[in-house]
Amino acid sequence: MPVLRPPKDSEPDEFEQIARLYRPLTQGSREALGLLDDVAVLSCRAGFDLVLTTDAMVAGVHFLAGEPLDLVARKLLRANLSDLAAKAAEPHGYLLTIAWPPDIGFEARTRFAAGLAEDQAEFGIHLLGGDTVSTAGPLTASVTLLGWTPGGSLVRRNGAKAGDIVVVSGTIGDAGLGLQVLKGRLEKLTQAERAKLVARHRLPMPRLALRNALRRYATAAADVSDGLLADAGHIADGSNLHVTLHLEHLPLSSGAAGWLRRQPDPATARLELATAGDDYEVVCTVPPPLLDDFVRAAKLQGTPVTVIGEVTEGAGLVASFDGRALPVVRRGWRHT
Amino acid sequence: MPVLRPPKDSEPDEFEQIARLYRPLTQGSREALGLLDDVAVLSCRAGFDLVLTTDAMVAGVHFLAGEPLDLVARKLLRANLSDLAAKAAEPHGYLLTIAWPPDIGFEARTRFAAGLAEDQAEFGIHLLGGDTVSTAGPLTASVTLLGWTPGGSLVRRNGAKAGDIVVVSGTIGDAGLGLQVLKGRLEKLTQAERAKLVARHRLPMPRLALRNALRRYATAAADVSDGLLADAGHIADGSNLHVTLHLEHLPLSSGAAGWLRRQPDPATARLELATAGDDYEVVCTVPPPLLDDFVRAAKLQGTPVTVIGEVTEGAGLVASFDGRALPVVRRGWRHT
Repeated sequence: MPVLRPPKDSEPDEFEQIARLYRPLTQGSREALGLLDDVAVLSCRAGFDLVLTTDAMVAGVHFLAGEPLDLVARKLLRANLSDLAAKAAEPHGYLLTIAWPPDIGFEARTRFAAGLAEDQAEFGIHLLGGDTVSTAGPLTASVTLLGWTPGGSLVRRNGAKAGDIVVVSGTIGDAGLGLQVLKGRLEKLTQAERAKLVARHRLPMPRLALRNALRRYATAAADVSDGLLADAGHIADGSNLHVTLHLEHLPLSSGAAGWLRRQPDPATARLELATAGDDYEVVCTVPPPLLDDFVRAAKLQGTPVTVIGEVTEGAGLVASFDGRALPVVRRGWRHT
Repeated sequence: MPVLRPPKDSEPDEFEQIARLYRPLTQGSREALGLLDDVAVLSCRAGFDLVLTTDAMVAGVHFLAGEPLDLVARKLLRANLSDLAAKAAEPHGYLLTIAWPPDIGFEARTRFAAGLAEDQAEFGIHLLGGDTVSTAGPLTASVTLLGWTPGGSLVRRNGAKAGDIVVVSGTIGDAGLGLQVLKGRLEKLTQAERAKLVARHRLPMPRLALRNALRRYATAAADVSDGLLADAGHIADGSNLHVTLHLEHLPLSSGAAGWLRRQPDPATARLELATAGDDYEVVCTVPPPLLDDFVRAAKLQGTPVTVIGEVTEGAGLVASFDGRALPVVRRGWRHT
């Protein structure tokens, strides 16, 4: 890489950083070849398909500059894990690329790696390989996550049927409100409520526990990252059907409910929550005869789920509140 | 992604860009699910292992700001393809993440995608999935490339044996000189020589044609990306052996030879070429009884190879010129 400056003497160079920060993250797996080769190598798992997803994050865009780097690392992993969760796939390992700005030194990088280690242990995954480079810009990191699904069984976005019920896990809108708290807003909420919302923003919980329920009962599923309307809309569009979401049933945490009570227009406020994104919940469709079984299976795995809408013939998505269709300017956040 | 600005009206938004720029790159493959789902899904290939590599590039670090974006895209793919080439693996498909700065508009992004399309056709690979995000910093892109190798047959870095011959493909140092040309230096070379060096810098040729020769005859191999000394050093270190490189045998293009003739000290100049990096050649080790067969097999596939050194008991790497060991300050370029 000829245009790069030579390393500063005071900090471990690239190879030392690999040895000290990243090689420990491969332990217990031969697939990474100790990060000592050009590649990782993975034996196929008989009867399973490989599932792949990739997500990138940029400081100042996907997280506030100054966020603790262990949390940034964990959120990056969890955003990818959430994609696999929605597909009922079992996470296995990941490749990582990081562009480090010069003002993030070895100590901060160590904290980033500590976050990776913590979530590797929590989710039973390991580092397979990566590339670390320098940048004059903001910290930029991407993960390619690999997982397994029984051959041919992937839960797609495009499998919904007319008549299916739309179900969503957990609560919606907390992460968006948590971001507002971090920006110094929402001061009327209690400190405990604010802390919970911030935690949801910083450290989402991928719904991997839904795996068996999704695989057995769901016709389609997507993770809620862009916003509930956006991601339910993906199912509608992918399945060439129409989805109605009833926002009076939007599942809310106590913090979000507290915020909602202070808003002048409950319909607009619910739309805001349902388009905020970053929830990392799962929205899915289930045939009515299987709904009770799905809800029971989800609850058995500790995952609350809520009926939020239905699939019908037609196209597009409508969000309604108490029977009135709401004007949807946009379903979620997009970036160019 | 709540902290992002809404799209400018004048340019296609994220989903339109995916549809227009990236979805065409998945054509012919069902694995990408048309980029319409959260993941890609890959059936395993019976009897083969999956090989994975990832490389990132940052404008101003790995390529000069202002380089044509189709060439940047192709070089990014080729850097990854070179990793697979050195492992005798067969490339299959890739995931892509790009962080676009706001000043790179749709037209320039189209050119980037055109570069991807061109090299997809050249190397028989396709896009499996990806993520495009915004950045306030320089263009940053990463590729995770997947390939196949017959089960258990991966050519590693750590397999060299004492007595093996060190062989390198192609010519060394051209890309480093090409970068100097782009920076306005090396004006004494002919225009044709300068153009060839720049082409080597901009568009390396991954040595995928070496696959069968490497798999049959090589005990260890690495791609030459950090510099010949660095990457031969990786084989030495990985194999717990000593490697000597004889720089009087360094394979040179006519442009590099022309440059060399103008340098005051041929030994120092050769060291410079052998540590410049970005060559994307393959350095490998071959047992002496198999050397003729290896050279013949490589030439049959159109790949010139040169004997450049040998493996002995001991540790570390020595570069010599006409029998004299040279002082190696560093083996190649590192970045912190």
